[in-house]
Amino acid sequence: MTASSALLGEFQTPADWIPQSNEAWELMHKLYPICRSITGEGVRRTLAILGERIPLTLFEVPSGTPVFDWEVPREWNVRAAWINGPDGERIVDLREHSLHLMSYSTPVRATLSLEELRPHLHALPDHPDWIPYRTSYYREDWGFCLTQRRLEALRPGNYDVCIDSTLSQGHLTYAECFVPGATADEFLIFTHVCHPSLCNDNLTGIAVAAALASELLRSRPQLSYRFVFAPGTIGSITWLARNDAAVARVRHGLVLGLLGDRGPLTYKRSRRGNAIVDRIASAVLPAIDSGARLVDFSPDGDDERQLCSPGVNLPVGRLTRTPNNEYAEYHSSADDFSLVDRTSLAQSLAACAAVLRMADRNCAYVNLNPKCEPRLGKYGLFRSVGGRHPGEFEHALLWVLNQSDGERDLLAIAERSQLPFATLASAADALLEARLLEPCRSSSNKDEPHVSVGSNP
Amino acid sequence: MTASSALLGEFQTPADWIPQSNEAWELMHKLYPICRSITGEGVRRTLAILGERIPLTLFEVPSGTPVFDWEVPREWNVRAAWINGPDGERIVDLREHSLHLMSYSTPVRATLSLEELRPHLHALPDHPDWIPYRTSYYREDWGFCLTQRRLEALRPGNYDVCIDSTLSQGHLTYAECFVPGATADEFLIFTHVCHPSLCNDNLTGIAVAAALASELLRSRPQLSYRFVFAPGTIGSITWLARNDAAVARVRHGLVLGLLGDRGPLTYKRSRRGNAIVDRIASAVLPAIDSGARLVDFSPDGDDERQLCSPGVNLPVGRLTRTPNNEYAEYHSSADDFSLVDRTSLAQSLAACAAVLRMADRNCAYVNLNPKCEPRLGKYGLFRSVGGRHPGEFEHALLWVLNQSDGERDLLAIAERSQLPFATLASAADALLEARLLEPCRSSSNKDEPHVSVGSNP
Amino acid sequence: MTASSALLGEFQTPADWIPQSNEAWELMHKLYPICRSITGEGVRRTLAILGERIPLTLFEVPSGTPVFDWEVPREWNVRAAWINGPDGERIVDLREHSLHLMSYSTPVRATLSLEELRPHLHALPDHPDWIPYRTSYYREDWGFCLTQRRLEALRPGNYDVCIDSTLSQGHLTYAECFVPGATADEFLIFTHVCHPSLCNDNLTGIAVAAALASELLRSRPQLSYRFVFAPGTIGSITWLARNDAAVARVRHGLVLGLLGDRGPLTYKRSRRGNAIVDRIASAVLPAIDSGARLVDFSPDGDDERQLCSPGVNLPVGRLTRTPNNEYAEYHSSADDFSLVDRTSLAQSLAACAAVLRMADRNCAYVNLNPKCEPRLGKYGLFRSVGGRHPGEFEHALLWVLNQSDGERDLLAIAERSQLPFATLASAADALLEARLLEPCRSSSNKDEPHVSVGSNP
Repeated sequence: MTASSALLGEFQTPADWIPQSNEAWELMHKLYPICRSITGEGVRRTLAILGERIPLTLFEVPSGTPVFDWEVPREWNVRAAWINGPDGERIVDLREHSLHLMSYSTPVRATLSLEELRPHLHALPDHPDWIPYRTSYYREDWGFCLTQRRLEALRPGNYDVCIDSTLSQGHLTYAECFVPGATADEFLIFTHVCHPSLCNDNLTGIAVAAALASELLRSRPQLSYRFVFAPGTIGSITWLARNDAAVARVRHGLVLGLLGDRGPLTYKRSRRGNAIVDRIASAVLPAIDSGARLVDFSPDGDDERQLCSPGVNLPVGRLTRTPNNEYAEYHSSADDFSLVDRTSLAQSLAACAAVLRMADRNCAYVNLNPKCEPRLGKYGLFRSVGGRHPGEFEHALLWVLNQSDGERDLLAIAERSQLPFATLASAADALLEARLLEPCRSSSNKDEPHVSVGSNP
Repeated sequence: MTASSALLGEFQTPADWIPQSNEAWELMHKLYPICRSITGEGVRRTLAILGERIPLTLFEVPSGTPVFDWEVPREWNVRAAWINGPDGERIVDLREHSLHLMSYSTPVRATLSLEELRPHLHALPDHPDWIPYRTSYYREDWGFCLTQRRLEALRPGNYDVCIDSTLSQGHLTYAECFVPGATADEFLIFTHVCHPSLCNDNLTGIAVAAALASELLRSRPQLSYRFVFAPGTIGSITWLARNDAAVARVRHGLVLGLLGDRGPLTYKRSRRGNAIVDRIASAVLPAIDSGARLVDFSPDGDDERQLCSPGVNLPVGRLTRTPNNEYAEYHSSADDFSLVDRTSLAQSLAACAAVLRMADRNCAYVNLNPKCEPRLGKYGLFRSVGGRHPGEFEHALLWVLNQSDGERDLLAIAERSQLPFATLASAADALLEARLLEPCRSSSNKDEPHVSVGSNP
Repeated sequence: MTASSALLGEFQTPADWIPQSNEAWELMHKLYPICRSITGEGVRRTLAILGERIPLTLFEVPSGTPVFDWEVPREWNVRAAWINGPDGERIVDLREHSLHLMSYSTPVRATLSLEELRPHLHALPDHPDWIPYRTSYYREDWGFCLTQRRLEALRPGNYDVCIDSTLSQGHLTYAECFVPGATADEFLIFTHVCHPSLCNDNLTGIAVAAALASELLRSRPQLSYRFVFAPGTIGSITWLARNDAAVARVRHGLVLGLLGDRGPLTYKRSRRGNAIVDRIASAVLPAIDSGARLVDFSPDGDDERQLCSPGVNLPVGRLTRTPNNEYAEYHSSADDFSLVDRTSLAQSLAACAAVLRMADRNCAYVNLNPKCEPRLGKYGLFRSVGGRHPGEFEHALLWVLNQSDGERDLLAIAERSQLPFATLASAADALLEARLLEPCRSSSNKDEPHVSVGSNP
C-alpha cells in the first residue's frame, strides 16, 4: 500500500490489509488490561496510547455539564477493589480482571456476611466460567462480578470488602482525529472507548478506526473525515450537544464496533434507510464478504441510537460483524482474544475502506451538453471506425452523460447501469477533463470554509 | 366482558363474542319476516326493533329532496300482494315470503292471461327451488318472484293479480347511533337496512353493527363512533348529501354486511388503498381468521360505492365474509338462517372489534426530547444495572421515541419494528406519563367541538 | 382492413397485417441494393422511392450547419470503388455489394503493396464468409470490407486501389410524413435511413414506418403523427436541433428498427421508464407475442440515444425484435433477406398498430358528478330491474366514473380494474355522451393550433 493512494486508491482485498490488521492486533493487546469506564483515567490512558499512532485532539467536558436530557456524570476512578473471604483468602481482585468490579461502584470498606454481600455479586449461571460485565452509571451502587463457579463456592462467614474508588467533580474525556479533505463535507466515524477488558466490544472498533485514520492521513481525500473516540451513549450525546457545526457538515457516517469475531459482516442501515452510506454498503459489502448481512435500522445497539435519534437523524449506519447480544460471549470475560482473529479484522478493514473509498469518490454531475450526445470522437473519447458495438468504457461514458442531471450520483448510475462504479468514475474523470461535465456537490454548504472544532474549554 | 373496558380493552378471541353473537342471532330472527324496501314502514319497523337495543336518532327525509344526481323517491308501502290461478288457487302470496313481490311494485288489480302475466314473473332457472330478489326502484313496474318449479307448473288461463301497494309522497327513513368519544374525530360504520327477508345480506350487518354500538356505549373511546342504518345506495347518497360536517370528521370507516356465512373474512380496501383502516385490517384480520382475505377496492358492492366516490373519497373499507355475488344463494330466498351460523357471526364481531380497538388506540406522537434519547432511568423507565440487553418493553420505549416525529403513528411503528401494537401502546402511555411525548392527532379539526347532527326537517 | 377505421379500429391480429407485410417486403427489395450513407444520393434515392408510397416532405440541411455539439458533415458520394490484385484480377468491387466500401471513404487512386493495403481491409475472422459494415464519418480515412476468406487468399504484390468518391459541401437529407390528427399532440415515429445493403437493420424499420403512415393517412386519428426518416445519430441530432416546436408537442414516440428477424419483439423503455408509451407497450405486446420482452432504457442503441438525452428526455421507447448487437449477423452482409421473414414483419406491424391505437384512444377524464354515483338509469346506462350483479360494461362505467379525477387515464384504469381497455373506452364514450365526463388532455398546449413544419430552406 503506497503512501499517496493508500485507502482511497484501487480496490483492495482483505489480504491487502494484513499489515494493518497486525498493527491493530498489537494495539488491542496494549489496551486490553486497562480498566476503562465512561470517565476517568482509563479513558485517558487509552487515548494516550492511541495518540502515539494518530494525531488526536482531546476534549475534557466538566462533570455537571448539561447535555440534552442528560448531564455529564461525576468522574469515576478506582485504585483497588477486592473481597477477602472468611479465611482471609482473596475472592476477587480488580487487578486480576477489570471486569471484576461493577463500573462506577461507589467506595466501600466494610465487613459483610455472605447474605449481606450476596446482592452485590453478579455472575452468569449459564456460563459458570465467565465473568459478566456490569455497570451502574446513574444509580449509586456497588458490586462485584465473578464466575458462577466461584460464587457457588462461597461459604457463609464474614467478608472484607474494599472498593477504593472516587466519584468526584472531574471530566468526561473524548478525542477526535480530523483528516481534512478537499471539501468541508464530512464523513463521521464513531467508536466507543468506555469498555474495560473486552476485546471484540470494543477494542476492535478502536483499532480499526485508528488504522483507517492512519491510512487516510496519507491520502488526499475529497471529503473531510472526523473520527470520534468517546464513551458510549453519554459520549455521543455530549459530542452531539457540543458540535452543531460539525453535525451540520456530516454527509455520511459509520459507527464502528465488534469488528473482530468470525461472524459475517453486518451493516445496519441508518434511520433514513436509503442514505448514500446505506446504498454504498449494499453495493460494496457482498464483494468483500459473500455472507455479509444488511439489516434495517432499529433504535437499539450503540451510538447510532443517539446519532439517529429523530431530532438528529444523521445518515449514519453501523458496521459490525456479529451484532451486540447475538453472541454468547458478549459483555463477558469470554470476549477476549480467543473470540477474535486477525483475518476477520483485515476483512473488516477492507470493508470500511471500500465504503470510505466509494463515498469519497461518489459525486453527482451536470452534463454541460445535455441536448443529444456530444460528439465524443472530437474529444478523443470514441473510436473513429464505426459499425461495431461500443465497449464497457464507452458505455460508461454514455451512461454518465445520459444520467448526469445534477441529481443522480455515480452510485445511482452504477445501480441503474450495472456497470462497475470504478469504470463509471473513470468515465466521469475523462468527461470532466473534456469539460463535458461539472461536479454538483449536493450540500448547501459546500463552499463554506472548514470551521475548526472548538477547543477544550 | 366487563362494562368498562368492553370492546376497547384487551384483545378478545371470537369465543369471547359468543354472548353477543347469540343476541345478534335473536335480533335477526325478529327482523327476518319484515318486508323492507328503501322506504316505507318496513324500514321504520326494523329501526324501531333496533331502537329497543341501542339509542337511535331517526331521520325522515321527504320524497323529492334532491340528493346529488338523485332525488329521494316516493315512499312505497304494501299491504297485500298475491296471484290467484285459473282455478282460484293462490299462486304466490307476499304473506308467505317477502321476496315474492318485486320491491317498489306499482299497485295492480287485474285479470291477465298467462301470456300477459309472464313478463312480470321472475325466477331462477339454475336454482329451481329458490325465490329471487328483484327491485324496480326507478322505473314504474310491477312483478312477482317465485321458484322456477312453480313458474313451470303454471297452466294457461286467467290469473287474478293483486298488488295493494302505494307509491306516494312520504319519506326516506334512516337512523344513527352516535357514541361520543374524547375527540370529535369519527369512525363511521355504515350498514344497509333495505333488504327484505334475506339473512346474510343484510340482517347480519345490522345485528353486528348493533352489537358493536352496544359494546362501545359501555366504553370510553377516544374516537367518536357514528353508526348509520340506512337503505343501500339512496340511503348513503342521502346521508352524504345532508352531513357535510360529519363527513369532514370521518377519520376511518367500515361498511358492514354479509357477516354470517361460513366463508373467510374479506376486507375490501378503501379507494385510497392505504388508509389507516386498510393498514389496520391488514394487521389484525389474519390473527382472527387465518384464511382472511384482503382485496383491493373496486367501485361495485355496497355503500362504499358512494362513500368512496371520487368527490367523497372517505377512508372507508368494507368488511364481509363471502362478498356480494360470490355465493350462489346471494339475493335469493336461500340466503336464510341455514346459510349463516353463530360461530361465524362471533368471529365477525371479534374482527370488527379488533379493527375498532386499534383505530381507537392508534395515535401519532411527537417526541418532546428528540435530540438523543432521554435518560429513561431518570423517569423510572429503565433498569439501573447496565450491560444487559434491553427487554421487549424497553425496546418498545426506544422505538416509540425514535419514530415519534408527529407523522408516524403507533401502527406505522408496529409495522416497522415488528413489535406488538399493544406493547407499543403501553410504552407510549408510559412515555406520555413521563411527559416525553405529546399526542399529535393529525386532523385539522381536532379541537372543534362536536356538532350535533341536524334534526329531521 | 377498411379505409376509414384501418389501423385505429378494432384490434387486429398479426394475420390481418399480411397484405401490408407483403408490400413492405417488396419495398425492402427495391431499397436493398442502394449504397446509402448518412448523406448523399443514396439517401435521396431511398426517400424518392418511399415518396411514391407516402407523402413526404424533404429537408436538406447544408454541410457545416451547427447542430448542438456537432455539425452537419460534408456530403459523401461515390461512383466506383474497387481493388485490383497483382494479376489484375478484381478483388473487391462496390458494384458487387454496397458493404464492400467503408462508408465515407476518402477518394483514393494508388498502387500499394499488400503490406500497405492491409490496414485498410476489414473482415470478420469469426465469420469468414461475411462482409462487415464499417464507417468512418468523422475521421478522414478509407477502407474496404471483405470476407475473411478472401482476405486470407491475398498474395503479396501490388494492388491497384480506386475510390472514386467525393466529400464536399452539400446537404444532409431527411424526410417527414405528417398525419394531422384532431389535436396537435404528437406521436413521433423515428427510423434511420443511412444503412447500405442491410436488411433487418434497417430496411424493416423504414418499411414498417411507411406501412403505418399509409394506414394512418386513411384514419381520423386524435393525435397527430410525425414520421421522421433520417440518418442515424446525426439525423436525429439535426432534427432535434431544428424542431423545437414539434419537440414540444411530442406526447409519445417510438424508434423503429430491426423488425423483421425471427427473435421476439423487444420493447426498450424510454429514459423516463414509466412514460405512457412504456405502459402501453407493457399492456399490449404480450398479447401479440407471448415471448415479447420489455427491457429498461440504456443509453446505447439507436436514435433513442439522442431523443432520450437528458436535455431532451422525450417519452420515446424503441421497438425492435432482436436488438442491436445481440445477433451475430448484425452489421454484416449476413443481415440479408434470409434473416427476416414476412410473418415476423406482420407481427411487428400489428404490435406497432396496437401501441398507436391505444395511445390514440387513451385519455384522462374528469367525472362531472364526482360526489356519489350518478343515477345511471336516468341516462339509459343501467338496467332497470335491480338485484342482479352488474355486467362488464356496467362495471366499466363504474370504474371510469370512480377513477376519473383528471389524473388517471383509461390506461391507468385498465391497469387497476383489469378490465379490457376497449370496454373502458366504450364506457367513457357513453359517459361522455351523457355529459357525465369531460376529457382532460394533460398537455399544456392542447388548444394550440397545429404549427406547420418549417419548409426546406
